[in-house]
Amino acid sequence: MRLSKFHLHTTKETPADAELVSHQLMMRAGMIRKLAAGLYTWSPLGLRVLRKVENVVREEMNRAGAVELLLPTIQPRELWEESGRWEKFGAQLLKIKDRKQADYCYSPTAEEAITDYARQELGSYKQLPVNFYQIQTKFRDEIRPRFGVMRAREFLMKDAYSFHLTDADLVREYENMKAAYTRVFTRLGLEFRAVQADSGAIGGDASQEFHVIADSGEDALAFSTGSDYAANVEAAVAAEPAPRAAASEALRKIDTPTQKTCEDVAALMGIALQRTVKSVAVVGEDGVFVLALVRGDHAVNEIKLGKVAGLAGYRLANEGEIAEHLGSEPGFLGPLNPRKPIRIVADREVAAMADFVVGANEAGFHLAGVNWGRDLAEPDTVADIRNVVAGDRAADGGEIRIARGIEVGHVFQLGRKYAESLKASVLDENGKAATPSMGCYGIGVSRIVAAAIEQNHDAAGIVWPAPMAPWEAVVCVINPKNDANVAAASESLLAELLDAGVDAVLDDRGLRPGAMFADMELIGIPHRIVVSERGLAAGTFEYRARNAAEAENLDKAALLSRLGR
Amino acid sequence: MRLSKFHLHTTKETPADAELVSHQLMMRAGMIRKLAAGLYTWSPLGLRVLRKVENVVREEMNRAGAVELLLPTIQPRELWEESGRWEKFGAQLLKIKDRKQADYCYSPTAEEAITDYARQELGSYKQLPVNFYQIQTKFRDEIRPRFGVMRAREFLMKDAYSFHLTDADLVREYENMKAAYTRVFTRLGLEFRAVQADSGAIGGDASQEFHVIADSGEDALAFSTGSDYAANVEAAVAAEPAPRAAASEALRKIDTPTQKTCEDVAALMGIALQRTVKSVAVVGEDGVFVLALVRGDHAVNEIKLGKVAGLAGYRLANEGEIAEHLGSEPGFLGPLNPRKPIRIVADREVAAMADFVVGANEAGFHLAGVNWGRDLAEPDTVADIRNVVAGDRAADGGEIRIARGIEVGHVFQLGRKYAESLKASVLDENGKAATPSMGCYGIGVSRIVAAAIEQNHDAAGIVWPAPMAPWEAVVCVINPKNDANVAAASESLLAELLDAGVDAVLDDRGLRPGAMFADMELIGIPHRIVVSERGLAAGTFEYRARNAAEAENLDKAALLSRLGR
Repeated sequence: MRLSKFHLHTTKETPADAELVSHQLMMRAGMIRKLAAGLYTWSPLGLRVLRKVENVVREEMNRAGAVELLLPTIQPRELWEESGRWEKFGAQLLKIKDRKQADYCYSPTAEEAITDYARQELGSYKQLPVNFYQIQTKFRDEIRPRFGVMRAREFLMKDAYSFHLTDADLVREYENMKAAYTRVFTRLGLEFRAVQADSGAIGGDASQEFHVIADSGEDALAFSTGSDYAANVEAAVAAEPAPRAAASEALRKIDTPTQKTCEDVAALMGIALQRTVKSVAVVGEDGVFVLALVRGDHAVNEIKLGKVAGLAGYRLANEGEIAEHLGSEPGFLGPLNPRKPIRIVADREVAAMADFVVGANEAGFHLAGVNWGRDLAEPDTVADIRNVVAGDRAADGGEIRIARGIEVGHVFQLGRKYAESLKASVLDENGKAATPSMGCYGIGVSRIVAAAIEQNHDAAGIVWPAPMAPWEAVVCVINPKNDANVAAASESLLAELLDAGVDAVLDDRGLRPGAMFADMELIGIPHRIVVSERGLAAGTFEYRARNAAEAENLDKAALLSRLGR
Repeated sequence: MRLSKFHLHTTKETPADAELVSHQLMMRAGMIRKLAAGLYTWSPLGLRVLRKVENVVREEMNRAGAVELLLPTIQPRELWEESGRWEKFGAQLLKIKDRKQADYCYSPTAEEAITDYARQELGSYKQLPVNFYQIQTKFRDEIRPRFGVMRAREFLMKDAYSFHLTDADLVREYENMKAAYTRVFTRLGLEFRAVQADSGAIGGDASQEFHVIADSGEDALAFSTGSDYAANVEAAVAAEPAPRAAASEALRKIDTPTQKTCEDVAALMGIALQRTVKSVAVVGEDGVFVLALVRGDHAVNEIKLGKVAGLAGYRLANEGEIAEHLGSEPGFLGPLNPRKPIRIVADREVAAMADFVVGANEAGFHLAGVNWGRDLAEPDTVADIRNVVAGDRAADGGEIRIARGIEVGHVFQLGRKYAESLKASVLDENGKAATPSMGCYGIGVSRIVAAAIEQNHDAAGIVWPAPMAPWEAVVCVINPKNDANVAAASESLLAELLDAGVDAVLDDRGLRPGAMFADMELIGIPHRIVVSERGLAAGTFEYRARNAAEAENLDKAALLSRLGR
């Protein structure tokens, strides 16, 4: 491949709507172009990367024994009504009327279509287990498409669906798919984590998400150094606290004229933030006023607090309600001496504290040396209502670490939900009709491209992991028109690299070195080789790895070894 | 690949709606399954064939220097309004409203989207010429989807679009694409023809269609033995006839009591059908009564007749009109002695005849020895109004042959129509804005699969050309469970074939030989190799080519040579 014959078109401008680095860099590198909101054209450069991801996914699915097919993108309403999702899927389902006014949708996922295929094709237990997959365009009519291909409306997804006679066999295939996904993301050269997840809207019994680790990720993930345990922070369970120590301080009132936060109070007192308690006033069911207590260095987990009995759909209390119940302004709230009866919901960690600091319910004052049972009654409710934080002890004895992630894969144990509603069945060993148990397994192929960039970039542009790069190596020709020697040597090196199995490209566009190198750094080619008159005279090539600080001069053998050949 | 792990599911039933052999065989082989009208799932078996076609198309497009990209299937109304096709495309355009009630369509072709991409990407003549292509799902909301994937609503198409500074360069690329298409269909092992075509609804300057030759084809194609000339019969021009001979017979009336057709009259008289003339009574513009004359062995070409001045939108005359103008009933019509003035439109071939036979305008009688200028005036109009027929002399001196074809490819010179309406321009060598000239080039990837079957099948099933076959060769294992020797030898032969680059599969399903062979013939595997205990003892394998009448016993070397290795 010669870049002079390839439509490469980089730009310096970053579009105004590109918030994420991956979106900015994909636009600048010319990998994608916007056709309309959430609809992107993949340029020749972008498509090379997309196909590399697609091929790794396909190879690993095949290796895992899954069988590829292709379902239509347009699917009839009747089928989606059988599963109940024609209505339930909501506005993300793009609904279409054809010329005869019949209703269809653009498939956002294909449980219905594959179950329809299965009920036509599968008649006997002997045909099970089977795992069908496709790599096909999907559409979700996002209310706010953004972040380029990270959350596009039209996108490329690998979706697989397995059918089993028994739940035990489903679990076996689920583990098989988890292993295949691990191979996919490992081969792509990405840092990733498999995490526990709620199954969300798709429903079913068990599920796990695969996340590419990136600071810009939408999801905070908690994982343990002690095992493979990992979970979305929203779902991560905090470990049991150590038992409560005995009271050792007297209750006393502290002058905190302007200190309205735990941080400020701890700083004033010269104590650890962990000794303070944060009071969050909320209103639960039936208008009950509740003070939720978490340690000063912790944050309330809204999902967990909402799961406490009586707090479903709770809201924050307003200043009037706070003054009425506590007689104080925010910044000095606490569980002692309320003006009216209140309910105390303490995080387990707070319930295990002794000699702690809280607001005094009096502007300008906090209380220190507070102890449960001595200075105030035990909490009405003790529960896990906080987010886990880095450094927490994990249930497995390890330590919790927090990272942000971008979801790129999801494996589900669906069970018999779809097979039952679409009446798919096979005859078992005894000739009796049996409803197969199903798993489904998705990978966001186009999303992986953006996620990889979020994880791998620097000021100069994209830093592709080699397996995803549009080309592994570029041979840069300095002055191809003016120097026939250099041009010929470049062509011959390119041929040699291709013969050695390196996916290499020749930059023969005749750009000045600075512009050429900037382009190659922007589009993230892992290995850059410069052929120049001076180098040829010395028998060397100038080599620079994309992530190296300096270039170096190497002879051909050293160069090939640097390329792993 | 082992068939025991592959979801192969053949059936004996032919669905009632499957009229074409290809549709029947694809259903029986389990290559496709219907999801809804015009919407088909490609099974694992079908997808293998589809991908083989796709890959050949991709390789040849790349070899021809085209660059692959990927456009969204869903495209905004605004873009289609710029070209005027939002309305003009008609009901085949599937229109969609998204959640915000904005209008989109499912792309049936992508001139608009690619021109939008080009106007963003192409700024300078230096970026031209460029030929972008994609292999992407398309949708056309056919009023009567039928014939399986031959005329499905959702289908896979390769569409390419080239951009040029000059028309001359467009012509160069048009020829380049014709050569690439010729390589594609040649590599696929199909009998095909490139034919002249009207450009139809897409508009533009020049176009050619590629047809797979098959008796069931919708289009009749005329081609010459003397050159590459080929055209749709609708469009094929008849050669100039030889000059008219001198009259040699006297005009006479012939008794033809029951002979109402040229065939019957010629048989009665014992003369060649070519000596008779067929009279077709039609009514043209302003109600003018016209008798169109073609030779007895020719047929009126309605398109050509409609192009004669005064005959646009003509209709057949009714019996009342015929009696009023000719005083006769149909079956005995002719140009002599009409009752009222009529217009005579003679095919060029008829105008060049002497001593011919026509109806006498009197029930039960014909006239023989008729001569222009002596027995009746010269025709009012002489024109090419007939279909060419096999055996016609062609303009190039060759002979016309007729075949039926299925259109699978189309190349167009679009010119500047889309670039102008979408205001795409580049700066030329002088820094002036220039509108690029465009070509577009389509291949119906999924349709090729059905067309290939129409061309290549027998009573037992599909007879794939090797490059399209799901597998080139199958190794059939007799009794794999009962005979460990045979199973091991089969596995080892499979490995050897794969190493030799043969795309081979092992049929280890344990079926009885009859059922196994019937399946392999139905799905059309070109080479069948049977491993049996008896063969192993003799050091041979039973080999049968799909299109051979008999199996033969070959040693391994002979076997590999039969497979071209």
